[in-house]
Parts: sequence; C-alpha cells; structure tokens
Amino acid sequence: MEEDGNLQIGNSNYNGEEEGDPESNTMNQPLLKRHRTLSSTPLALVGTKVSHIESLDYEINENDLFKHDWRSRSKAQVFQYIFAKWTLACLVGLLTGLIATLINLAVENIAGYKLLAVGYYIGQDRFMTGLMVFTGANLGLTLVATVLVVYFAPTAAGPGIPEIKAYLNGIVGSIGAVAAGLDLGKEGPLVHIGSCIASLLGQGGPDNHRIKWRWLRYFNNDRDRRDLITCGSASGVCAAFRSPVGGVLFALEEVATWWRSALLWRTFFSTAVVVVVLRAFIEICNSGKCGLFGKGGLIMFDVSHVEVRYHAVDIIPVTLIGVFGGILGSLYNHFLHKVLRLYNLINQKGKIHKVLLSLSVSLFTSVCLYGLPFLAECKPCNPSIGETCPTNGRSGNFKQFNCPNGYYNDLATLFLTTNDDAVRNVFSSNTPNEFSMVSLWIFFGLYCILGLITFGIATPSGLFLPIILMGSAYGRMLGQAMGSYTKIDQGLYAVLGAASLMAGSMRMTVSLCVIFLELTNNLLLLPITMFVLLIAKTVGDSFNLSIYEIILHLKGLPFLEANPEPWMRNLTVGELGDAKPPVVTLQGVEKVANIVDVLRNTTHNAFPVLDGEDSVTGAATELHGLILRAHLVKVLKKRWFLNEKRRTEEWEVREKFTPVELAEREDNFDEVAITSSEMQLYVDLHPLTNTTPYTVVQSMSVAKALVLFRSVGLRHLLVVPKIQASGMSPVIGILTRQDLRAYNILQAFPHLDKHKSEKLR
Amino acid sequence: MEEDGNLQIGNSNYNGEEEGDPESNTMNQPLLKRHRTLSSTPLALVGTKVSHIESLDYEINENDLFKHDWRSRSKAQVFQYIFAKWTLACLVGLLTGLIATLINLAVENIAGYKLLAVGYYIGQDRFMTGLMVFTGANLGLTLVATVLVVYFAPTAAGPGIPEIKAYLNGIVGSIGAVAAGLDLGKEGPLVHIGSCIASLLGQGGPDNHRIKWRWLRYFNNDRDRRDLITCGSASGVCAAFRSPVGGVLFALEEVATWWRSALLWRTFFSTAVVVVVLRAFIEICNSGKCGLFGKGGLIMFDVSHVEVRYHAVDIIPVTLIGVFGGILGSLYNHFLHKVLRLYNLINQKGKIHKVLLSLSVSLFTSVCLYGLPFLAECKPCNPSIGETCPTNGRSGNFKQFNCPNGYYNDLATLFLTTNDDAVRNVFSSNTPNEFSMVSLWIFFGLYCILGLITFGIATPSGLFLPIILMGSAYGRMLGQAMGSYTKIDQGLYAVLGAASLMAGSMRMTVSLCVIFLELTNNLLLLPITMFVLLIAKTVGDSFNLSIYEIILHLKGLPFLEANPEPWMRNLTVGELGDAKPPVVTLQGVEKVANIVDVLRNTTHNAFPVLDGEDSVTGAATELHGLILRAHLVKVLKKRWFLNEKRRTEEWEVREKFTPVELAEREDNFDEVAITSSEMQLYVDLHPLTNTTPYTVVQSMSVAKALVLFRSVGLRHLLVVPKIQASGMSPVIGILTRQDLRAYNILQAFPHLDKHKSEKLR
Repeated sequence: MEEDGNLQIGNSNYNGEEEGDPESNTMNQPLLKRHRTLSSTPLALVGTKVSHIESLDYEINENDLFKHDWRSRSKAQVFQYIFAKWTLACLVGLLTGLIATLINLAVENIAGYKLLAVGYYIGQDRFMTGLMVFTGANLGLTLVATVLVVYFAPTAAGPGIPEIKAYLNGIVGSIGAVAAGLDLGKEGPLVHIGSCIASLLGQGGPDNHRIKWRWLRYFNNDRDRRDLITCGSASGVCAAFRSPVGGVLFALEEVATWWRSALLWRTFFSTAVVVVVLRAFIEICNSGKCGLFGKGGLIMFDVSHVEVRYHAVDIIPVTLIGVFGGILGSLYNHFLHKVLRLYNLINQKGKIHKVLLSLSVSLFTSVCLYGLPFLAECKPCNPSIGETCPTNGRSGNFKQFNCPNGYYNDLATLFLTTNDDAVRNVFSSNTPNEFSMVSLWIFFGLYCILGLITFGIATPSGLFLPIILMGSAYGRMLGQAMGSYTKIDQGLYAVLGAASLMAGSMRMTVSLCVIFLELTNNLLLLPITMFVLLIAKTVGDSFNLSIYEIILHLKGLPFLEANPEPWMRNLTVGELGDAKPPVVTLQGVEKVANIVDVLRNTTHNAFPVLDGEDSVTGAATELHGLILRAHLVKVLKKRWFLNEKRRTEEWEVREKFTPVELAEREDNFDEVAITSSEMQLYVDLHPLTNTTPYTVVQSMSVAKALVLFRSVGLRHLLVVPKIQASGMSPVIGILTRQDLRAYNILQAFPHLDKHKSEKLR
Repeated sequence: MEEDGNLQIGNSNYNGEEEGDPESNTMNQPLLKRHRTLSSTPLALVGTKVSHIESLDYEINENDLFKHDWRSRSKAQVFQYIFAKWTLACLVGLLTGLIATLINLAVENIAGYKLLAVGYYIGQDRFMTGLMVFTGANLGLTLVATVLVVYFAPTAAGPGIPEIKAYLNGIVGSIGAVAAGLDLGKEGPLVHIGSCIASLLGQGGPDNHRIKWRWLRYFNNDRDRRDLITCGSASGVCAAFRSPVGGVLFALEEVATWWRSALLWRTFFSTAVVVVVLRAFIEICNSGKCGLFGKGGLIMFDVSHVEVRYHAVDIIPVTLIGVFGGILGSLYNHFLHKVLRLYNLINQKGKIHKVLLSLSVSLFTSVCLYGLPFLAECKPCNPSIGETCPTNGRSGNFKQFNCPNGYYNDLATLFLTTNDDAVRNVFSSNTPNEFSMVSLWIFFGLYCILGLITFGIATPSGLFLPIILMGSAYGRMLGQAMGSYTKIDQGLYAVLGAASLMAGSMRMTVSLCVIFLELTNNLLLLPITMFVLLIAKTVGDSFNLSIYEIILHLKGLPFLEANPEPWMRNLTVGELGDAKPPVVTLQGVEKVANIVDVLRNTTHNAFPVLDGEDSVTGAATELHGLILRAHLVKVLKKRWFLNEKRRTEEWEVREKFTPVELAEREDNFDEVAITSSEMQLYVDLHPLTNTTPYTVVQSMSVAKALVLFRSVGLRHLLVVPKIQASGMSPVIGILTRQDLRAYNILQAFPHLDKHKSEKLR
C-alpha cells in the first residue's frame, strides 16, 4: 500500500490480460515483486485465496515435446526430483524456524533492555526520564523499520540490488517494529517470510545470484513453486503460533484452492521441521543462554493446566462472546478500511510523509503506553496466587511501576511490556480480578484505537496480534462482568474473546480453531471454541467482507472468489467474451512479422492457434490449440525460422528445444531483435502448441466456467461457438482469471448486481 | 465379500454405464445397498477415495427449470436450507457419538462379565472349566454376530424389511464380534455406521418409512448427501479414536476428493459434537454408573504424562521401526489378499460355510488366547511401579492368572482381556521390562496369524485394531531389544510400532499422524511420529498397493484413482470412446417410442440431445445438451406428450414439473406403462436438457480428462470431434467414471501397461 502507492479501488485494466507485465509471467511474481519488502499487508497476501498462484502444469506444458520428456524421464531423474522436493520442503521449514527464532530472540532482547532501562528510572521515581527513554527508544526502532521499508524497498531500487537484501530488510524491519512496542505482531510477517523463503528456494536463490543447479530446473514450473509456497506459508503460521496442524489447515483453508493429498503431507513435514527447530531453541533458552528472552516469546497461552469445566448455563456468556466478536470484528473491518484509504492519501504525498506518519503513530503509542498506567489505582498483591508480586524486572504478571511495595499497577502489567507478554498476562488463568474493570476498559479502548491507526503505516505488520489484544481485553471484561454466574476462568474468557474477534474479522474458522487448540493444548476447549468461532463468523459475515478480502480489493490484487456469485448463473461466457476486444489468433504456420506484431501489441499470455481453410472465405476453420507467449518468445530468440510455409518434423524441433527450456517461463521479448529479412520467414507453431486446451461452449454460464477454472486450476479457457457456421472463427473468446473476477465482470455488466460492489465501498 | 458372494477381480462390465441398476442412480446407493450390513470391509468402503460419491449438482440440475428455481428461492428458503444442513451435521455427530457410546458400553460389560467368570474359575484352579466358559461365551457371541450378518443381511431379504434393521444388525454384530475377543476392532464399523447414519438422515429415514418433510427434499441431491456422508465418516473416525481433527483430516485425505472450505468447517462441527457426547459419557462413567466399563474403553493410549526426550542417536531405532513397519505392512497386505481370496472360495459354498468359518476362527482364537499364557513364566511384581499387582479383576496391567501371589503372568495381561485393554497394556509407559521377550514374540506371532485369518469372516470387522496390536507388539519388542541404547520409553516404542505398521499397510499419513497426536495429547511426539510414518509409507509403497485399494479391487468397487497413471497420457479420449459401443443419442423433439426404446435397451444414465439437420444427409448437426435418464422417466410418468413435433413454451413446462421434482433422482422406469397410441406422440426434451455439459475434444489425453473429471466432480463427459465434418455426429462419445478407471481401460487396451494390473494379482 505504501511502497509504490498503488492503492486503488478495484482493478481498472479489465480488458487486459491477467498480467500486463510480460516479465511477471511466473505465477508467484506478483507476490514477490510487488510486496517483497514484507512491508504492507503480508498476511493479507498469503492469507487469502491466493488463487493466482494457481495453474496446472498440464495446461502449460502439454505440447508434444513436453509429453515426450515426461515419458522419457528416467527412474533416477524421478527419484532426484522427489528427493529434491522433500529436501526443499525440509529447508523451507528449517529456515522459517530459524528466522522465527532469530526474530523472537532479537525482539525479546531489544525490548527487554529497553524495558529494564525504563524500569530503572521508574524505580528512582524519575518518571520524565523514563518517558524520554521509552519514547526515544521506540521512535528510534520505528525509524529503523520505516526507513528500511520506505527507502530500501526493492521496487524503488534498481535491478542491481539482489532480492535477498529485501528479505533481510523485512526481517530487520519486523524486529524493529515489534520491539518498538507498536500495536502489531510478528505473526503476519512470519507467514510472508515463510512464503518468500519458499519462493526463493524454488528458484534457486535471488534473481542475480541464482544457483543454477540442474535439478532446480525441475522446480521452474508453476505447480511445484506453488506447492513450495504453500509449504512456506504453513511453516510461517506454524512458526508464529507453534501450531503444526493449524499451519497446515491454514494453508489448506486460506491459501491453496487446489489441493492434493501429497501436498498435505509435504506441508505437514515442513511444519514439523519448524516445530523441531522451535523446540530445540526453547530447550536452549530454558538453560538461560538467550539473554533476556522471556517466557512470553514463544509460549503465548498457558492454560493447559486449567481445569476446564462448563455447564449448560455457560452457553449464554459464550454466545455473547461470539456475537460481540462478530459485531466488533465487522466494525473493525469497516473502520480499518476507512483508515487505510485515508492513510493511502497521506502516503501518496511522498516518502517523508510515510516516515512522519509512522513516527507520529509511534509517539502516540509510546505516550499512551507510558502515561495511561498512571491513571490506574495500585492494587494490593494477593499472596494466595503464588506468583512474584510485585515485579520490576523484564517481564512478570504484576508490575510494580509507580506503586509502593506490596502493590502492583495492573495497567502497567498490560502496557509496559512486549505485546506477547501483554497477551500472556491478560490470558493468565487462576488470577480472577487481577485487573480492575476500569483498567480493562482503558486497555480495550487504547488497543481499539491503536489497532486501527497502526496497521497502515510503513512497517512490516501483521493483523493477528492487534486483534488478539483487542479480543482478549473484551473477553476478560465480559468474564469479569459475569462474576460468579459462570465457573469459566477469566483467562479462558480472554482466550475465547480473542478467538471470537479473529473469527469476526478474519473469518477463518477451522485453522483458527486448531491453532487455539494447539496453543492451549487442551482438547476440552474444542467444542466451546468452535461454538464461539461459528457464531462470530456468522455474525460477521452478515455485515461485511473479511478483512483480507477488503485489503485485497483495496490493493487491487486479483483473486478468484471461492464460490460463484448467484448472478453469475445469468451470464454466459459468450456474453462475457463479447465484452472483451476480439481474440487475437495465430495461424498454425505463421509469419515471423505477425508473431512479432502480436507480441509487441498485446500483453496476452497465450494465443489460440488456428488451422484449416474455409473453401469460400479462406478463414481458418479448425482450432489447433493454444500457444504460450513464453514459447513464442523462445522461438524468436532461438531464431527457429523456416524459409517456406511448411510443417516441421519432430526431430527438427527436438534438436532445437530441450523440454526443460520449454518449461521455463521467464522470457523477455524486449531482448529479441529481429531483422527485417527474418520478418518475412515462417514459424511452424504446431509442435509447440498445447493441442488440448480446455474449452467451453459459449452458452455455458459464467458460474459453471468459474467452477471449472478454479477446480482444474486453469489460466486460460477457450470459448468455442455452439454451432460452427461456415466462415466463423472456431474460437470466439479466451477467458483468463481476471475476466472471471466478480468485480471485473460487474464493471462491464453493472446491471447484474449492485450488492457486492456496494459492500466494498 | 460374503453377503452376496460378489467377490470378483476387477469389474468386467466395462462397456456398460457406470451403474447398471437404474435404481441405484443415487450416488451413495452402492455404498448402502451393497454393504449395508456393515459386514464386510466397512472401512475399506469409506476409507478410500470414494470418488463415486462425487458429482456436482451443477451438472445434474442445470436445465432451464432448475436455474429458474435457484434464482427464485427466497431468503427464508435459503435460511431454512442452511439451518437444515447444520442441524443434520449436528444430528450425525450426536447419533454417531451415542452409538459409539452404546457399543463401548455393551462390549465392555459383556466382555467384562465373561472375563470375571473366567477369572473366578482360574482363581479356583479349575482351568478346564475356565476354558469351557471362555470358549463357549466367545463362540456364542461370534455366532450371534455371524448369523445376523449372514442370514439377516438385507441384500438377501425382500424389500419389506426396513433398512434400519440392517443397521441395528450391524451394531449388534459389531458388539458381538468385539466382545467375543476376535482379533478385530470397532473402529472400522464405527466409520461405516457414521456414514450410514448420515446417509439415512439425508434421505429422511429408511426406504419404507421415510419421513417426507418438505425441507428434506433439499437434500435429495448428490452434493448435499455426499457432504453429509463425509461428515458421517469423519464422525466415525472421531468416535473411534476420540480425535476430532484427525477425523476431519481422515475425511479430507481418504474420503472426499472434491473438497470445499465450507465442508471442512461443517465436518469439524460434526466431530466436535461427537467429542462432546463422548466426553459427557466418560464423565458419567467415571462416577461408576456404567457397570464394568473399564478405562480402556475409550482412552486407549495414556502416554500424555510421559517425559518425551529423544536425541540424535535415537534416529537409528526410529528409522528401524519405520522400515520394519513398511516391510511388515506390505507383507500383511500381500498375505491378507491371499487369505481373502481363499475365504471367498469358502464363503461362496453357502451360508452354513460362512458360519462355520467364523466359528472355527473364534474357536482357534479362544483356545490360543486361553492356552498360550500357560507357556509364560510367572514374573515377580515390581513394587516400584506403583500399580496394583497382581490383579484378578476385570482389567489391569498385571494379571495374576495361574501365578502365585506376588507374581503376574505377562501373557495373560495381553491375552485374557479386551482388545482395547490389551493395547493399553502393551502401550503402558514407565513399565520397562514388564513383558518378557518370549511373551512378546508369542503375542506378536499369534496376532499376525489372527490378523490374517479374522478379517475375512462374516462379522462386522475393522482393520485398525488388528494392525495396532501387531504393530505395538513388534514396536515394544524393538524397544526392549534396544535396551539401554535409547532413553525412549518402551510404551512409546509400542505406539510408534503401531503407527508404522498402520502407515505400512494402510498408507494413510496425515490423518494417522494427527490421530496419534490427539490420542497421545503430546505435541513433542509429533516430529518422531511423522518421521516413522513417512518411512513406513515410503517403504510400503515400493512393494504393493495399500490394503484399501487391494480390498476395493477384490470387491470390484469403482473408484477413480487420485492421480492419472503415466500411460494415460498416451491415450486420447477419442480412442477410449471408440472402444465403447456407439453413443446413444436423442433428438431435441423425440418420439415417445424412441425414448421408451432407449430406456428399455440401455442402462445409461444420461443421453446427448441433438438438434439441427444436415442439408445433405439429414443427420443432426448440433449438440443441444445432455438429458438425464431420471428426467426421461419423469416425462413418461407425467405423460407430458405432444401431438405434433413442436417446441414447447416455458410456462407449459413449469406447469408440469416442479423444480424439486426434477432434482429428485429416484425413478423407476418399470412402473411406467405407455399405450401404443401414446408411443406415436412426441416429447420436447429441450427444456429438460442441461444445455452446457462439460465437453472435451477427442484429441485430449485420458490423463487430462481424468483430472477434469475428478476436479469438477463430473458424472458424464461428452467427447466432441476436433473438426466437425458434414454428416458427422457432433458428439462422438460419452465417458463415465467407470470408463476412466485405470483397471477398465487396461482391460480394453492391455498393451498400455501391465505393471499396474500385475501388482494386483
């Protein structure tokens, strides 16, 4: 949203092909190129139906040459391929786990020393100095994060800067932003980092320093890359929440729309590796070798020892939590949308505005976090709870702050600590009435404001933590208000509140449920959690779209809806095709000049190849198949030209192109120079054509075409006429993912339904 | 395999339509009709890619009338539909949970009293009497189970016996078989029972006493029924293992090949309900109201309190477990296949042979279980373990049997108990060297034999438990053999052994892993479990097919392979269509006589409808769409005939057919009598035709067509010619699920690949 100011409502290039930039042929390029700084809304990118990472290698590669290659691959090569796949999955898990460890260590230590210093001045009653130190440190850290994102974003830099630097920026920026006490989490960036690692590994490293191992070429296709990215995002979720099954289900529910059993297992393998890495790291840190690393760094919830008991009467408060979560979640979505549009206006004014915005938010955050605890009354320590009270150190559930000995400041416990520790404290179980109602109200109110104003600033940021903080606050409040009506622990109320708000805003359900299940490690909580999530999601869905969908629409990123809209049944693909410019076709044996012309003047990624000749009109009558832009460029690059209009033999083609070359999809037409004499030569496109593209009859409904598109994971769908009349082209349209997006269809056919587009305003 | 002797290798009716019986139109009918006794291999039915429960309502219903209905459904109706869906999902979970409870209670009590009686005689040294009682009780229970299956199987009975009785038979049979101490579990039957409950609920009850609620008509389509059945099978797994997430993943991995996010969530809801029911039941039983219900009834594994520690050196024994598991699993599959073929020969001889076979197996089992413990040496009790030792009661880890006080018989601990308790005992942690090596060898050897000879007998039986017993035995042996080399608990070795053998035989991975994760409730075990499963599956896959696939092939049940075979790329759908009899088509406005003729002489479920007329040959030139057999029967039943050859108006159709009627798929042509004068009338098929069936060009490879078929969940795929020449039919073939099965294709094209079919011999 901020790195190149490309915030726009919807996508206006409706008539264009799906990706205007021929360089971004590779499916995952938009994910990387546009957002490689991890700066904007990483989770939104990964954590939503990213169906544009979706396409089947059948479609791409099924020309005669590739088929031959597939058959001739030796056993050893197949083994090598499988081995490489698993190795990469393992590496993805390993690296994601290590980076998560690194981020945790850095955040905990930086924030730890900061808080210790602040605590030192407070202990001496030098409150102003404490404020200066706190605010100054936070401003400095925010500055680092923002400057990295704003000034070193690779979209702004030339191609000389290797991508890897961008990822490092993202990691350092995330550390800075979280350590600065901003109301944002490392969870979202972790998911993005996981996906980026996977993508990098799949292509053998950053663009300019790419490792050209031979076996890596196997991964130069959409399917294997997409699989790897799925592993990466699952690993990221797993690293964020220590939840291997939850990570897999997250990928299943949110990322991958085309799913296979084998992928399930490989994703699971990656997340298991992450868990092993995190586990080893926790063991090491438990022996005190991690500096100021506190308990809260990785183990957020600790309700596993709580006796969970609930009865029929508890259904009322639990329903309440769910309903409130749904309402609050959709309200949050609504207002965040407004704030993001406002921020976009500010950010568009220039880089310095972005930095200033971030710093103002940081300043406001610091002053509130430091100042508000003075409003709280000191509460006497309850010796029966058995925890140290009050505490002055790096973490702890009962911070002394400005209170006399034997007393603690409950707001300082929530505010003057890292976000992770704050969550831990508000989740803490067996500590009824630890927080006064007033303090909880202040906590809730502040984090509602911070949650709205922080997300859009130019730092790597995730939405999980702000929502958890808000949700846990109101959950605990509700629990406290219930008083003796239920026997459910107040910490549990906080957990349920967090879950309900997440469901109400993000609308994830199964993965969220499993994440909470694994975090709490308590199977007894499952039914009650499901119940809350279900209600919150239902209530939220009745108001507006999920926060991911809202952000994706704001950013104009393409993704296909999971289910066809009802009105799509009333539109045929023929009508949809008519609203587009006429389809550009090629002849089976085509003049070089025509090919160059087509490549120059269109940005389409594939072209129908026609054959035959009508006896009367001379028009082509037969659809031979579909040829990819990348293959046309390959032909021109290799100068595989014929002097006459003739069909080629198979050996001629095989001599010229290796199957692996044809599987590659990165080819830049600009580098090709064709002489004017060459322009008059011919190319036989037949051997490079996929002879069996998926076709639909023009009378098919868009809804049905969309189901086909999504289910099989297509990129192009040819529309053929119902009756092939003489003189008529055998193909009347070509549909891409962009064409089937509800938003784009409604732009062209506004009468169909106003409802959906209104929801987005 | 036994109820109607329909064991056959493969399916020979290759040229026929997918379901020969027009009554079995409903997708899930084969599941119910053929196997409603729960008798044969319930899990194999549910627990495998049951892609024949798969078809999209788009395809079935998208004629003009249905489209109109869909658009006109009011908000209230939509709400009613959604509400009904969730209610049914809840009911499925509830009933499955209750039935699981019932089975557990019955088994534990029946087996408990039996064992108490036996223990009483043993305590008096009256060993022969004990043997008589033990064997007699087991024979009696086996007889009940077998007779129910063999004589009251509804396939053998007339249509007067309601289906519900069959299910009761299955439940009672399962109780009898498990309580009889046979080497089989209640897990498999539970999965089947769950699916059957779902199917029954979806159709409003058993055939003859069906509740005709109006809203139930919404569920009279394949998709909603299939969704419900998916919920049912997940609930079954959950009830068997108390594993809600595992149940969902099982359904995801094994049952549903076409999956949606919404289904994920609804399935999860069902399993959560099951967990609540089981939990409530455990609470009640803990207060001692369940008679002899022991701990082992539902909580099989109890390693949650074990300190799990493993180091790098442990990788060697763990790898060993995995490799052995893979080898043993594939050996088991191999020999079980042989035994099942042999049993089939015996069972075909008649019902009395089936009963005798069951009784012999029961007799052999009883004698071995009772006699073998006499071979074991008495071991002195170890007071440091802190469990009661020796025990004489209903359950217990240290059975006294024939030993003096202060000593226990380790084989009796494993044999003279329920299967669930045996698993619990062999899994018991912190009890190193509880079992002597000799005893474990005897245990392992006996259960290898029993595991092979028990599964094929005519009782409801599951494969989970026999495999767990075998696997845990060799796991524990391996752990004991390792001695002091590793610090992993021997009980954990047993768990890993069971997991590896399951992976080696069943080849499930993710769901198995999660099931074990939830059973052990110990996240630390995850990486090591995954490692073992991965190795075992890989090793097993290199030898033969999974046990499910073997059984499905044995039973000749249709299911589509998850992935296309390599050789499918070398065959086009055109070639495949040519090998079939010519496609039967109808005219847009067709004579009644022709329709009757077609319905009488074919069993096809759908027919292409052609239009237009070639000026030269008079042949139809245009494909109008596809009409379902059910709709043709509807037309004849309603006598919706025209006196002349003309197109109808929309209102005429709408007057005659309600959309709900058209969504129904059960119509029997035999009941329709057409007079000879009516035969000369016409029917306009246009409004009832699905005008946009999915089509593929004849040059498309079978592999690609299969992907389309599976991804979109089709039932019929039309093959159209590449070039539409004059006088040629616009449709040259129609492919069904049966046509795309690898086995059937190889029957018609044996030269393509011998490898796959050889694997099955």
